[in-house]
Amino acid sequence: MERTVFIVSDHTGLTAESVARSLLAQFEPVSFRYVTRPFTDTEEEVHNLIREIASVFQRDRVRPIVFSTLANQALNNQLKTAPALHFDLFSTYLGELERELGLPATGRVGQLHSANNSSYFARIEAVEFVLATDDGIGERHYQMADVILLGVSRVGKTPTCLFLGLQYGLRASNYPLAEKDFEQEELPEPIRPYKDRVFGLTIAPARLHQIRTQRKPNSRYASMEQCEYEVRRAELLFKQLRIPYFDTTSASIEEIATNIVQSMGLQRRI
Amino acid sequence: MERTVFIVSDHTGLTAESVARSLLAQFEPVSFRYVTRPFTDTEEEVHNLIREIASVFQRDRVRPIVFSTLANQALNNQLKTAPALHFDLFSTYLGELERELGLPATGRVGQLHSANNSSYFARIEAVEFVLATDDGIGERHYQMADVILLGVSRVGKTPTCLFLGLQYGLRASNYPLAEKDFEQEELPEPIRPYKDRVFGLTIAPARLHQIRTQRKPNSRYASMEQCEYEVRRAELLFKQLRIPYFDTTSASIEEIATNIVQSMGLQRRI
Repeated sequence: MERTVFIVSDHTGLTAESVARSLLAQFEPVSFRYVTRPFTDTEEEVHNLIREIASVFQRDRVRPIVFSTLANQALNNQLKTAPALHFDLFSTYLGELERELGLPATGRVGQLHSANNSSYFARIEAVEFVLATDDGIGERHYQMADVILLGVSRVGKTPTCLFLGLQYGLRASNYPLAEKDFEQEELPEPIRPYKDRVFGLTIAPARLHQIRTQRKPNSRYASMEQCEYEVRRAELLFKQLRIPYFDTTSASIEEIATNIVQSMGLQRRI
Repeated sequence: MERTVFIVSDHTGLTAESVARSLLAQFEPVSFRYVTRPFTDTEEEVHNLIREIASVFQRDRVRPIVFSTLANQALNNQLKTAPALHFDLFSTYLGELERELGLPATGRVGQLHSANNSSYFARIEAVEFVLATDDGIGERHYQMADVILLGVSRVGKTPTCLFLGLQYGLRASNYPLAEKDFEQEELPEPIRPYKDRVFGLTIAPARLHQIRTQRKPNSRYASMEQCEYEVRRAELLFKQLRIPYFDTTSASIEEIATNIVQSMGLQRRI
């Protein structure tokens, strides 16, 4: 059975969508169809949306579920007339926060993902920093890095660095561990001066083999033997040098990034 | 006055943090200090956290605010003994969802940001696609693009493409509009075959001048005159060719990306 879920926001709706998906992921046997309606901020839009919800209700024979974050209480009340199970994500909490803080809420939802000058520049700069120091290039910039990820090819370094840049505004570099680096019991020379900022990534050899095979099937690079060798040597290096490291095998980019931020005690720049 | 806010999760805590920040942004005069405790999943961790909350309470003389997403109800109850205003983000809704769906919640919070094989590959592929087709390179890949962003230098194309890749798994390319492109009343040749996938970005000339000045102060490139000229010609081109476009001047990356997804009717790949 499929349930239709409407995400309705007067802004991007990204927060509402992430709450909805987190909650509904706990009802696995049901499959959900998501309909997102960001930037909904007029009576007419809500009116049309209510008609859409009603027609989905008729079609599905079960009422849709609505998650909304609308700052305008009149629009929110209008939306509540739709034939749906309605979760109003903000009002639930705002009353209690108003009492606690002794202040009225400003009603400006969506401040989270609004542009503001300093965080705009911090983010753009962070993304540029990641690109300028990706995969071992741009070593002259390392002294400005918040963190330098170290690991074998295809362990997940680049997407993690980009996520750290976009989500946290952090300047994240990454350096690939290659065979020549295993011959010495030291960090590769370009990152040696920054040991306290180095964080290792590792992965199960079988998973690495799977990922590399997608890229270069039947190569020595993707072979199980090579993957086992590289991972063993990388982990040995991390242990010898007491570099903190994390296993990315069954982790998402969010999980890897959160772990790094936590372990290294990094502070958001945005 | 500063309030301390604890974000407590047995997973990344990114959803809880985004809800907390959205809500608290509506109480602007108060400044909030965020303490995040991801991957909290043992009694001992909760025990230590309660002590930390108590000591912050003593120091600040106002009780901290806690936003939690803990799947384990026993841990959640333990946490509730802390001297804080506690918002338990999931239980609030789970009961009602259980009744509506006629199913018990699985209790696996954090499914949203967990790795799963197909979305892992879709995301990595999307990020690689963005990097392989950034700033007008890799035109042989355009036929696989979900969207091609077009705009003058520094309008925000690259970070937006990366966000579309990481957040939505979309294959987003970008092509820079340069002076030579204004001489013809057509799309630049490499992207001409893909007109229906092209989306324009524009910006206020004064803002572009500010952004370019950060990069190359006192250059012709950053001059107000040049910025005005390029923006005027770019917008003219979008209008003539009926390319949908969006003004990034006071928009965040999230807002730009959400607008593109919405206008182009794009579907998440993850």
